[in-house]
Amino acid sequence: MKIGVINVTEAHEKRVALTPDAVKKLRKLGFEVIVESGAGREAYYTDSAYEAAGAAIAATDAEVLTQADIITVVHDLSPEQISQLTTGKMVIGMLDPYRNTNLDAYAQQGVTAYAMEMLPRTLSRAQNMDVLSSQANLAGYKAVLMAANEYARPFPMFMTSAGTVKPAKVVILGVGVAGLQAIATAKRLGAVVEASDLRPSVREQVESLGGKWLDVPMSEEEKSKAKATGGYAWTPSEQYMKDQAAVVDKAVSNADIIITTAQIPGRNAPCLIHQATIDKMKAGSILLDMAASTGGNVEGTVSGETIMTGNGVRIIGAANIPALLAAQSSDLYANNLVNFIATLVDKDNEQAGSAPNLAINMDDEIQGALAVTHASQVRLQRR
Amino acid sequence: MKIGVINVTEAHEKRVALTPDAVKKLRKLGFEVIVESGAGREAYYTDSAYEAAGAAIAATDAEVLTQADIITVVHDLSPEQISQLTTGKMVIGMLDPYRNTNLDAYAQQGVTAYAMEMLPRTLSRAQNMDVLSSQANLAGYKAVLMAANEYARPFPMFMTSAGTVKPAKVVILGVGVAGLQAIATAKRLGAVVEASDLRPSVREQVESLGGKWLDVPMSEEEKSKAKATGGYAWTPSEQYMKDQAAVVDKAVSNADIIITTAQIPGRNAPCLIHQATIDKMKAGSILLDMAASTGGNVEGTVSGETIMTGNGVRIIGAANIPALLAAQSSDLYANNLVNFIATLVDKDNEQAGSAPNLAINMDDEIQGALAVTHASQVRLQRR
Repeated sequence: MKIGVINVTEAHEKRVALTPDAVKKLRKLGFEVIVESGAGREAYYTDSAYEAAGAAIAATDAEVLTQADIITVVHDLSPEQISQLTTGKMVIGMLDPYRNTNLDAYAQQGVTAYAMEMLPRTLSRAQNMDVLSSQANLAGYKAVLMAANEYARPFPMFMTSAGTVKPAKVVILGVGVAGLQAIATAKRLGAVVEASDLRPSVREQVESLGGKWLDVPMSEEEKSKAKATGGYAWTPSEQYMKDQAAVVDKAVSNADIIITTAQIPGRNAPCLIHQATIDKMKAGSILLDMAASTGGNVEGTVSGETIMTGNGVRIIGAANIPALLAAQSSDLYANNLVNFIATLVDKDNEQAGSAPNLAINMDDEIQGALAVTHASQVRLQRR
Repeated sequence: MKIGVINVTEAHEKRVALTPDAVKKLRKLGFEVIVESGAGREAYYTDSAYEAAGAAIAATDAEVLTQADIITVVHDLSPEQISQLTTGKMVIGMLDPYRNTNLDAYAQQGVTAYAMEMLPRTLSRAQNMDVLSSQANLAGYKAVLMAANEYARPFPMFMTSAGTVKPAKVVILGVGVAGLQAIATAKRLGAVVEASDLRPSVREQVESLGGKWLDVPMSEEEKSKAKATGGYAWTPSEQYMKDQAAVVDKAVSNADIIITTAQIPGRNAPCLIHQATIDKMKAGSILLDMAASTGGNVEGTVSGETIMTGNGVRIIGAANIPALLAAQSSDLYANNLVNFIATLVDKDNEQAGSAPNLAINMDDEIQGALAVTHASQVRLQRR
């Protein structure tokens, strides 16, 4: 039973699906591992490190695709690569299933494609496989660093003999995993932080990190609705949305740094900051849009570019932030994959010293959720 | 009595000598101010902000050079600009006096050139004019941000369901103003920090910021010598230098991030990290050399460039770090200049409502130290 890793070819992607440390863990589970030469280079993992961990090095992706039973990827294979796979093979990665145009090809080849984003996030035994969390956490940290590095003033307050340096005012919009880590990082760096989210339930988390919650008045009815759904699924009233937009507009206009994190898996990101607000911002302030690659939270965002507005505001259209921390994001991603692969092993039919048997079972709540193709069928329910 | 500001033309210099806030302060002292159009643009200060503060805007540098009595600069004027100055005018800036090739020209024009770097740093009433401190403090902060932004892992420790992220190991070499702020910033970001300096007297400051002091054994004789000179001027023994190099070599080889800050005004920077040490470093680690523009503390540094070694170490030859925080570094620099200019005003002969008289006096301990040319003479003692 062999697991493969191929070289990532997408522009700006520096991650690798498995690290040498992950190879060691898979070897312990009884798997063989084959890694295409150079696969870890951009994440600072050399071929010799993989070899030392017990992997074989392949000269080409074709070798990996033909020899491996399970192919691990960061994003996806190309149609040309998929065509080289034979029936019964498995592919595991962040397949972006709702936008993925290769699912029919996977099904046609009889390949089982596991999309890690489909993980049931409420399942506690699956938390260590949660790639959205592991990558968003690092992205939230990195987004603050990127914004701080663009900003022409420091984040912390300094008292110096030449005068006092005021702390930066940071606003975080969207308080999921990325937003929480962004709040924590901006606070670490000494900034004054405000945050907003449509879910009033996250207020406590913001405040526990030292952030200020941008409060929006709620009716009693709204309060109880929000409470009943845990804040997740409530539909705010039109008045609430209006009030929220006004609160955000005011905070953003006065801020030095704004980081937006609102992404909806498989859909376009909502626009949170409109031109009228940007026009009111100070010269030198920074808007970092973490949702740039899925349409953006900021009007005028260009994915992968930093643009300067007429009034001196820089809009950073951050495209693939986890790749900018490639060494660490690969570590955590590889751990997520290893944790999932470990659940595929048929523990009831283990034979000491021999290769692990796999228990492929679409009734398993994790496998069933992740498998977007299996047995020559596309299983993903299109929205 | 008119004070002028010109557009900086050096590559990568984004600072401006006076900010709108500084203009206000000078106006209060009775000065007029003339600013070349666009002088503050790169630091996010618009012409209209200068006008609102009470400055006149000039279309060309020639207008400023002919109309102003005192010309404030970030670095220096060009020979062509100096030739336009008439006898009795003053120029104030970071003139880098020991490397400055324009001093004869200033003297020939009868211009008094004040080099802010010449400030007697032990004089407590001069602390608010100390440009080396104000800029080095910001540079120390920014150096850590730059290094953290290049690094492919986070600085803080994170406990996540996908695994534990270890804190970055940071080593700071040289614990002056920049080094201390670098220690503080790396600690803020959650790194483990070690620091070294040839002056054992700074140990306490390192430890008070949460850094670990890289200890080097000292003989009793050395201890008392170092103590007697306040640690500043003692000459360490050959053995001490050897031991220190060994301690640094070991710490650097194990570190993820190294920031070197050892600069000697008017001389070339000492080489602290040699190729043999770099060869032992891990792939993905970062060397940020704050002394790159004066020869560098790291073997192989290229000023203004980031180079990658064969073993995957990046060496950042940071050229002009304060300019990367142009808004704030201009603020503090301008405050330094205003504080100095205020001491030029002849307080004993003030006339309400009229322009200030200046008391130019080479016997004054500040003016006398700063004036590198005066009364058609070069006053700087070449080393």
